[in-house]
Amino acid sequence: MNDRFELVEKALLKMLEQKKYAALRDILVTMNPVDVAGLFDVLEEKQIPILYRLLPKELAAETFVEMEPEAQELLIRGFSDSELREVLDELYVDDAADLVEEMPATVVRRILQQADPEMRSSINQILRYPENSAGSLMTTEYVSLRAKMTVGEAILRIRRTGVDKETIYTCYVIDDNRILLGLVTVKDLLLALDDDTPIESIMETNFVCVTTQDDQELVAQTFSKYDLLALPVVDGESRMVGIVTFDDAMDVMEDETTEDMEIMAGMLPSEKDYIHASIFDLFKQRIPWLMLLMVSATFTGVIIQSFEDALAAQVALTAFIPMLMDTGGNSGSQSSVTVIRALSLNELRFSDLPKVIWKEIRTAVCCALVLAVACFGKIMLVDRLLMGNAAVTPMVALVVCVTLACTVCVAKFVGCVLPMVAKRLGFDPAVMASPFITTIVDALSLLLYFTFAKAMLGL
Amino acid sequence: MNDRFELVEKALLKMLEQKKYAALRDILVTMNPVDVAGLFDVLEEKQIPILYRLLPKELAAETFVEMEPEAQELLIRGFSDSELREVLDELYVDDAADLVEEMPATVVRRILQQADPEMRSSINQILRYPENSAGSLMTTEYVSLRAKMTVGEAILRIRRTGVDKETIYTCYVIDDNRILLGLVTVKDLLLALDDDTPIESIMETNFVCVTTQDDQELVAQTFSKYDLLALPVVDGESRMVGIVTFDDAMDVMEDETTEDMEIMAGMLPSEKDYIHASIFDLFKQRIPWLMLLMVSATFTGVIIQSFEDALAAQVALTAFIPMLMDTGGNSGSQSSVTVIRALSLNELRFSDLPKVIWKEIRTAVCCALVLAVACFGKIMLVDRLLMGNAAVTPMVALVVCVTLACTVCVAKFVGCVLPMVAKRLGFDPAVMASPFITTIVDALSLLLYFTFAKAMLGL
Repeated sequence: MNDRFELVEKALLKMLEQKKYAALRDILVTMNPVDVAGLFDVLEEKQIPILYRLLPKELAAETFVEMEPEAQELLIRGFSDSELREVLDELYVDDAADLVEEMPATVVRRILQQADPEMRSSINQILRYPENSAGSLMTTEYVSLRAKMTVGEAILRIRRTGVDKETIYTCYVIDDNRILLGLVTVKDLLLALDDDTPIESIMETNFVCVTTQDDQELVAQTFSKYDLLALPVVDGESRMVGIVTFDDAMDVMEDETTEDMEIMAGMLPSEKDYIHASIFDLFKQRIPWLMLLMVSATFTGVIIQSFEDALAAQVALTAFIPMLMDTGGNSGSQSSVTVIRALSLNELRFSDLPKVIWKEIRTAVCCALVLAVACFGKIMLVDRLLMGNAAVTPMVALVVCVTLACTVCVAKFVGCVLPMVAKRLGFDPAVMASPFITTIVDALSLLLYFTFAKAMLGL
Repeated sequence: MNDRFELVEKALLKMLEQKKYAALRDILVTMNPVDVAGLFDVLEEKQIPILYRLLPKELAAETFVEMEPEAQELLIRGFSDSELREVLDELYVDDAADLVEEMPATVVRRILQQADPEMRSSINQILRYPENSAGSLMTTEYVSLRAKMTVGEAILRIRRTGVDKETIYTCYVIDDNRILLGLVTVKDLLLALDDDTPIESIMETNFVCVTTQDDQELVAQTFSKYDLLALPVVDGESRMVGIVTFDDAMDVMEDETTEDMEIMAGMLPSEKDYIHASIFDLFKQRIPWLMLLMVSATFTGVIIQSFEDALAAQVALTAFIPMLMDTGGNSGSQSSVTVIRALSLNELRFSDLPKVIWKEIRTAVCCALVLAVACFGKIMLVDRLLMGNAAVTPMVALVVCVTLACTVCVAKFVGCVLPMVAKRLGFDPAVMASPFITTIVDALSLLLYFTFAKAMLGL
């Protein structure tokens, strides 16, 4: 898919350079606004306004929403007041609020000046909610109905007021105090047998909703659990204040997944796309864990130092340290990532801990046995016979393999327990992934290694 | 959210045990089918049919769809033919096809016997498409319209035929040969000014669609790129054969993310949830990479062996091996995970490679300098002064820190290049994550370490 797009993009950019504006415009109007917005990402700054002014008004507004903040800012700075007003009129309130959040103060002032009073007050309302809360995600444009309306009246109301609403497919039934009473879908309305049916007799009163203060992660989880198109947001007194639509929920899901992956790889979560992050952003994101893990590796150093005599007596032992540490780290991160993912999909609860441990232990024993046997064979064949290293005696190989087996079991145990305990204590389980587990398992595997070596080799 | 559910669940299970069926039923009918299905997961086998028979017919069918395959199979085996038919009548075709895929042959035969002929043929059609293709995901129940219809006729058609369709909100305009001509949303229809407007004048002809053979990953990416509710699926001759709805696309997104995370943690992707996977499933998923990585660690062993003399002359060097390897591994996996994620979100293309390398190198240099200085300070303070290890001379510390700095740079370079090259060559970039990068970086960091040690310490 990407390759095809790249070819089309190149052709279009060439037309822009050659000033074939009419032909370019004819192609642009057949394209999806998302793809048109993609074009602006690869343009030079001075080309951005040129291409934008080629777009017919409606497509221009639809494309504007999908652009990167950099291009949006550049365009707004070049807009006349009336041009800015035209774009703002086409935006949904939640997109306008996102725009205001992204722009510098001078641009924000112009946006708020040009927005109509109703939109201005809605934007201000949304911006008051904490970042990453349901309130900050929602739009205040939804279709509201009354319980006493008939199906016919409701359809009429949708036809009259629906044009400015982000979704009309779920309508919200509220009372005089804006308390949310129930939901009606357009499907229910259209399929109702009789236009005189009162809304209260067909509305769904067992609905799922969130409050303005709920975290966006809960919003995303609720969407995917219940397969929703839109989710009503209420305040502390159950009064309807807005809806979150599924496109924003999908974006949150993507962001949360990226955040999980970043944390699992030992990074602080970032707000920016990789391509828009500065060197300093990346540095800030990565150095804390690198520093912490480097310092905590002091333990492994201390362990090795305190067994220096044993190592000096049996130099062959040193060569297996990386293999033991890596296999331990890999075994542990397999378990921890599996458990972290199951936790984030709500497939596991803390009460499942004994079941999880029992499962991991049995899996670990299977893996450990197979690895140990294979490792013993490999050492005797490759290290001793093939490479003729006489210092690698069968006893040394045995020490390595016993350590390997124990390390795998310990690693899988630590890997499954730590994320679940972290979650129970209110921490993000994703922190307990590969880098963290590796550091712990390294120290444990070295301790096991030297203990077995001393005992079995009589060092 | 979880805790609250656990309390409600416990209360409901207690009512079931105490046979307070009427009261239990009164609560169940107020619950969302997804939550009712969750109850079945924690029931004992013999309780499952009891609880199921408490549910009113429609809720029973809605709950059935959401259950785990184990509970579904148990229930079907206990169903009379007419009970089975009732449930099948309530299922959408894509859910029925999923059910058929999950069940053993004897159960499948009964399902196909009881399904009405139209559903049977649709199920068979869906099952013919390759696993994980758009065809296997789709449903064949959608609203089709003709270009010459008027808005009024279209609304009438939806009201007459919509009850069995999974979504009515996007309707598909086809010609006599079932070629897909355009889309019309119910919003367009309801907001059309005049009921006599012909469909062809308001239909959207620039639509996105996939073919039956396209991979489900492309389907999921298309949904999130264009924020779709439903995506039309056409055959090789552009004939409309079905639609994928957003709930199935969200499930695919979740599955693909899980798969990415599994691969990144050095596991083969699994088809089953963690909680339903057997020990053997987990073993099969985990052992191949563990084995491969263990064997490839032979290289690190060989490197250490060939520098045995240097190590024997300066035993203090050994203690820093784990720290160097881990920091290298962590630096590399930070870069690789960032790049892998950006690739899977389509934020990066292969042509961005020089930009990415330049970005990573500069970030690496910043991280490397800070880490090296901190490490030098730590070694001199902790290892030399605090622990009184006279063998750790300033020169040894310098060797360690120079190696550390170089390792971080090499690791970040390898970490960003390998996933992009893998993607270019048609492999899954996720394979180039932590375990794989670690193995390569380990070997490189050891080579650097001993080279610097020999040169700077004159070993």
